[in-house]
Order: sequence, then C-alpha cells, then structure tokens
Amino acid sequence: MPTWPIPDGYRFAGVVSRLRAEPDRRDLALIVSDRPAACAGVFTQNRVAAAPVHLCRQRLPRPDARGVVICSGNANACTGEQGFQDACRMAQIVARGIGCPEEQILVASTGVIGRPLPMPILEAGIPRAVEELRHTSEGVENVARAILTTDTVIKVSDRVLSLGNHLLGIAKGAAMIGPNLATMLAFLMSDAAVRLDDLQTILRRAVDRSFNRISVEGHTSTNDTVLLLANGSGPALSGPGLAEFAAAVEDVCIELAQAIARDAEGAQHLITIQVEGCQDEAEAAQIAKTVAQSALVKTAIYGADPNWGRIVSAAGYAGVPFDESELSLWLGDLLMYRQGTPIPFDAASASNYLRQHREITLRLKLSRGSGSCTFWTCDLTPEYVRLNADYTT
Amino acid sequence: MPTWPIPDGYRFAGVVSRLRAEPDRRDLALIVSDRPAACAGVFTQNRVAAAPVHLCRQRLPRPDARGVVICSGNANACTGEQGFQDACRMAQIVARGIGCPEEQILVASTGVIGRPLPMPILEAGIPRAVEELRHTSEGVENVARAILTTDTVIKVSDRVLSLGNHLLGIAKGAAMIGPNLATMLAFLMSDAAVRLDDLQTILRRAVDRSFNRISVEGHTSTNDTVLLLANGSGPALSGPGLAEFAAAVEDVCIELAQAIARDAEGAQHLITIQVEGCQDEAEAAQIAKTVAQSALVKTAIYGADPNWGRIVSAAGYAGVPFDESELSLWLGDLLMYRQGTPIPFDAASASNYLRQHREITLRLKLSRGSGSCTFWTCDLTPEYVRLNADYTT
Repeated sequence: MPTWPIPDGYRFAGVVSRLRAEPDRRDLALIVSDRPAACAGVFTQNRVAAAPVHLCRQRLPRPDARGVVICSGNANACTGEQGFQDACRMAQIVARGIGCPEEQILVASTGVIGRPLPMPILEAGIPRAVEELRHTSEGVENVARAILTTDTVIKVSDRVLSLGNHLLGIAKGAAMIGPNLATMLAFLMSDAAVRLDDLQTILRRAVDRSFNRISVEGHTSTNDTVLLLANGSGPALSGPGLAEFAAAVEDVCIELAQAIARDAEGAQHLITIQVEGCQDEAEAAQIAKTVAQSALVKTAIYGADPNWGRIVSAAGYAGVPFDESELSLWLGDLLMYRQGTPIPFDAASASNYLRQHREITLRLKLSRGSGSCTFWTCDLTPEYVRLNADYTT
Repeated sequence: MPTWPIPDGYRFAGVVSRLRAEPDRRDLALIVSDRPAACAGVFTQNRVAAAPVHLCRQRLPRPDARGVVICSGNANACTGEQGFQDACRMAQIVARGIGCPEEQILVASTGVIGRPLPMPILEAGIPRAVEELRHTSEGVENVARAILTTDTVIKVSDRVLSLGNHLLGIAKGAAMIGPNLATMLAFLMSDAAVRLDDLQTILRRAVDRSFNRISVEGHTSTNDTVLLLANGSGPALSGPGLAEFAAAVEDVCIELAQAIARDAEGAQHLITIQVEGCQDEAEAAQIAKTVAQSALVKTAIYGADPNWGRIVSAAGYAGVPFDESELSLWLGDLLMYRQGTPIPFDAASASNYLRQHREITLRLKLSRGSGSCTFWTCDLTPEYVRLNADYTT
C-alpha cells in the first residue's frame, strides 16, 4: 500500500455502505478535520447543479469547516427539494457523530443523475464511517477508493512545503469531464494556516489551470466540486510562504487533473495539447479546448492515424480570428504544418509515435502574441462508447 | 432508378476520374446551366478554409454563373497557394469545355485534408465530364453519387412550384458535420427567375435553419459549401411567388440536412431535438446544439438507455441562464422531468421506444418566452469510432 505524508489534524474513512450493488465496493467517504479549517470551494458552472453543490455553495467559504462526506453511485442531482433535504441530512448525521454544528460539514456526490438517495443506507453507513476515521494512509486510500465511479485507479497527490506543512489531494473522475469542471470531485487538505480569502483566490486560480483544462467528452457535470481545507493555527502564511503554498496547490491540482484524463473511460492515450503565440492565455485555451473536444482528432489518435488536417481544422473553428498562414503544428517533435503549408513527413514514423506512446503531445503555434496554454484530453475509443451505452440500465 | 423533375436549362454529369482508388467509383461531378444563372453561396465559418471555398468567395454572388465542378476524395484544404491555383485550373478546364469565361465556374471539393490535388487526373477527367453532361435523372443521380465520401446513400430533394418552376437539391455529408456547416456540400438548382440579392437572403436563412442545425460530431469542416442557382429569364419572382420559392428552398435544405444526419457515419438513430419556451430562437438553438453535441447523450441513445439526466445536464451547460425549476423533458411522448422534478416512468418502455425506432425525438421546454428551435443529430456508435480511427492511413 502506498503511504502519503498526512497533514496534521485530519482523519479519513471510506466504507462499504451498499449504495452500490457490488457487495465489497467502498462507496461512502468521510474526511474530518479535528480542528476548524478554513475552507474554499469551486463548483460546476452547470445551471443544473446537484443538491450537494447547492449545499456547499450556501456554506462556503467559511473559516471553521470540520468535514466532508461523499457518496458515490448516486449523484443526488435533478432530485428536487427532497434531494436538498437528503444532502442536509447527510451533513447532520456526520455533525452528530463528531460533535459539531451541521453547517460545518460539506457534502459531495457522484453517480447516476435523477434518482432519490436511498437514505436508510446512508443513515446506517455514515455512523460506521465516523467510527472508522483514521489518521493513516489506509484511511486516505479508502477515501480515494470510495469516491470512484468508472475510474480504474485511485488519484492521490501530495506536497511537503518547506516550513514542514503538508498538502494532500484526492480526486476522482473518468467521464462527464468538460473543461468547466466535470463529474470530478477533488479534496485538498493542508495543515498550513492560510487566510480564507487567500485560500479562495489560490483555489480558483489552480482550478482554472488544472481541472478546467481537461476534457474527456466535454460534458459539464452537475456535481463538480473542488474543496480546499487548511486547518493550521498560528499566523497565516504570507509572502514567499504563501506563494509556495499556492504553487503546491496548483501542482497537486494539475497532477490530479492529468490523472483523470489518463484514466478516462476507455482511453488509450493521454494527449497534451500545447498552444502558443496567442494574444492571451484565454485565446490559447479556447483553441486548445476546441482541439481537445474534436471527436475526429480523438478517434484519429486512437487509430494511430497522423491525420493532421483534423487538428488544424479544429483550431480553425475555435472562434479565434487567426490567419491560416500563421499556423504551425507539431505532432511530438515532428513538424507537420508550417505557417499554412503542409510539410512532407514520414507517415509510418508518425503513426509509430502514436502507436508506441501512451502519452503524446500536439503543439500548435500562432504569431499573435505570447499567450499560451496547456490542456489535457484523451482519445475516443470504442470502449468509451460501449461503457456509456449502458451505464444506467 | 428514381426520376426527378429537372429544372430547365441544367445538365449533369458524374464520372469515374480515378481520384479515388476504387476502380468503378464516380468521384468527379459537373453541373452546368446552359444560360447564365444568378448564384448565391454560403460557406464554412472555419478560419482554415479550403482552396475552392476561397475561389467561390471571390466569385460569388454573381448574376451569370454557368457551372460547378466538384471532386470527391481530396478536400484541397491546407494545400497552400498551389491548392488555390489547382482549384482555378479546375474551373478553367470546365470553362474551355463549355465555352465561357472561367469566372463563371464555381468549384467544390470534399475528402482528405492536406494532400495536393493530382492534377493530371483532373485534366483528363473534367473534359470527359463535359462530354457526358445530360439533362436527365441519370445525370442527376451520377452527380449525387460522385460527390459522396463516407455517405452510404445519395441525397436528392426537389419541389415543383405553383408557377411551374422546379427546384432540385443535391447534397453529401456523413461526418465532420458541425452546426456551422460541415464537410457537407449542397447544390440547389432552379429555373425560376430570382433577383441575386433575394437569392442570397433566401439561401442564408434556409441554411441557418437546416444545415446549421445538424451535428454529427460538431467538427466544422474546411470545405462546407452550399450554392443556389436560379437561371430563369423574364421578370423576377416577387410577393407570394418569391415567398413560395423561399419556402421551397428551406424545405429542400431541411430535407437534405435530415438526410445527412440520418446517414451519419455509423449512426443508428436520427435524433430530432425540439427546444421550446426560450427568449428567442438563438437561445433555443444554443440549448439544442449543446444537447446534440453531447457524446454522453449520443451514446445513451445508441445503447437504448433512457438516461435522461445526461440530457438535462447538457442543457444546463449550454450557457443559457435558465432556472432548473422551469425545465421539462419529454422522450418521445413520455414526460421524464417536469419543472425540475423527476417523473417516475417505466424504464423498459422508454428503452423500447429507443430500441424500436430509428427516428426519435427529445423535447425540452422552458418558460422564458416563445423562442423555439428544431435540431437534428445522430447517435454515437462504436462504428463511428472505427470508421474514423483509420480514415486516411
């Protein structure tokens, strides 16, 4: 079992509640901070938001969060007023178990949309999770495992800061991944002391450069939630210490985002898309996202087909008014298109590059300015279609 | 062989030039008007546009078009200055063959991006096409067949107007179909007399409600071209006659657009998406397009899975600021979600509806106003992925 440096004052549990049909599958997770933690959150931009997202939006940001309870297998989305009451009840059971006001508990869910939560299962399961809370790597792994849906691997990332503080991130996500968050959940815990407004600013920026820069199929979920908790006491970080903390949060978010794209449903390639030479970062992101969401680009890479016209033409409909004569494209190190003119290349070696590497890079360059962006996506495979053709029934 | 009422003064040819590897496959088409025709055009909005699109944009609109030459198998896109010269040369050969200035000839292409046109093949093929021009249904069918790529059926639609004039439309398209035109080509010929500015207005509006309302995978092609020719002499249509003509153009465009979505690569369902109760038509189209482009919606319908949460959640990220409590959804006649609350339904009969019908309807209703839109798409199948994983190599 992997071990992680665990931030001080946090305990973790992931249990089998039987929300899911599989008898041995962990599906209910709990993270508790033994002392009040500053907590910031970033959520889905979908107009149709799940009940736990509404709950977290009401309760965050706050200086005194004590825990997060997460269930997997049921999204508690499109469930109306009852769904909101059920999310509140989940928090209430945790609050009673650890002894705190219920407003200090946050909730997240992931799974099928539109089904009522089976509350008797959660009424029984949450107290068991409270009993199993541990300040151990096993606890962390159980949380990481209990929040998965169609993911095949757990996703954990950590950093140790120079002052001795720890940062630990746990995430899930394999589909319904659009670039404005997705059915992805991520929880970052630190024992650093950080002011609440700094925490929110740092998280917003880190999410923009990580979870908002991945796409599986571009479908923005109803449940996306990223929470960042910092439970340190004493003087809050500032100056270089705060900058180091912000960089660590961004690093952990990027590592978790890459892990999601790599583990995407049916994916055989992690595709890194680098766009350079734009007027600003937003323009570069717009082109990168459009290429990342092209089913024709993604199927070509699955087929190890260096069909670069699909990449160039996807850039062309991104809504950025560039001129074709300034566009160049590299596949890995191979220049395929230079300033609007195709470059003869060896199709067999380009195809081999795609066939032999699980992680590949596309680089697009314009000459409009110095704005750039890196974006991650995956290929589109028959397995993705098969998995999603019968997910609920 | 089907027969069509053929507009007066037009001749058609589709020949085997051997642009394509298959020995008997027609791949070069020619449409000629024996008298000057008013001609309007609408083209791809991709910043990376194919050489024939640049040529048509330079030459249109014009009152005296004489013909269109179309090759299939090579897009002549991303081919630099040489590609533009090659497109001009195609027009020149036609002009010499029928005896007119080369500016009166338009050009279109469809196929693989980024490869130079094999001009010797076209130098030999175009004169043969000129020789084979016929004012017959067989000529029309040969054109319809010669412009296909991965399409499995020809796409022809026609109307007879009350004054006795004819309107005939021929189209192709099966993938790289985004809602801003796609690798779709369509040519509409009429023997009515229509003023050039009326023609352009009528075509623009018809395209917005037909070819701009279909999506296969949302990838906007470099080659999209829709041309409308009217070669009638005498007084131009006006009043009710012009309105009837405009309605016929819109009908023919919608019929051809539906045929494209129905014949999409690997598709097993034609999906009609109706959105109602929006502030305006554009808002309704934005929601419809977002649902139409969701891979999760499309795979669920392929799998006959009534997973309506995917539909509702796609509407939610369309960028329209509606409130979840005003949203309702029907699958066929079955109400699944009413004003933000799920309605219990029989999953087996919903699944049967999807399994037993090749053409299905999703209806989404809001309460923001009276704007509505109809949009067409198809399901996403493993066959689509297979077809696109090895299209060039």
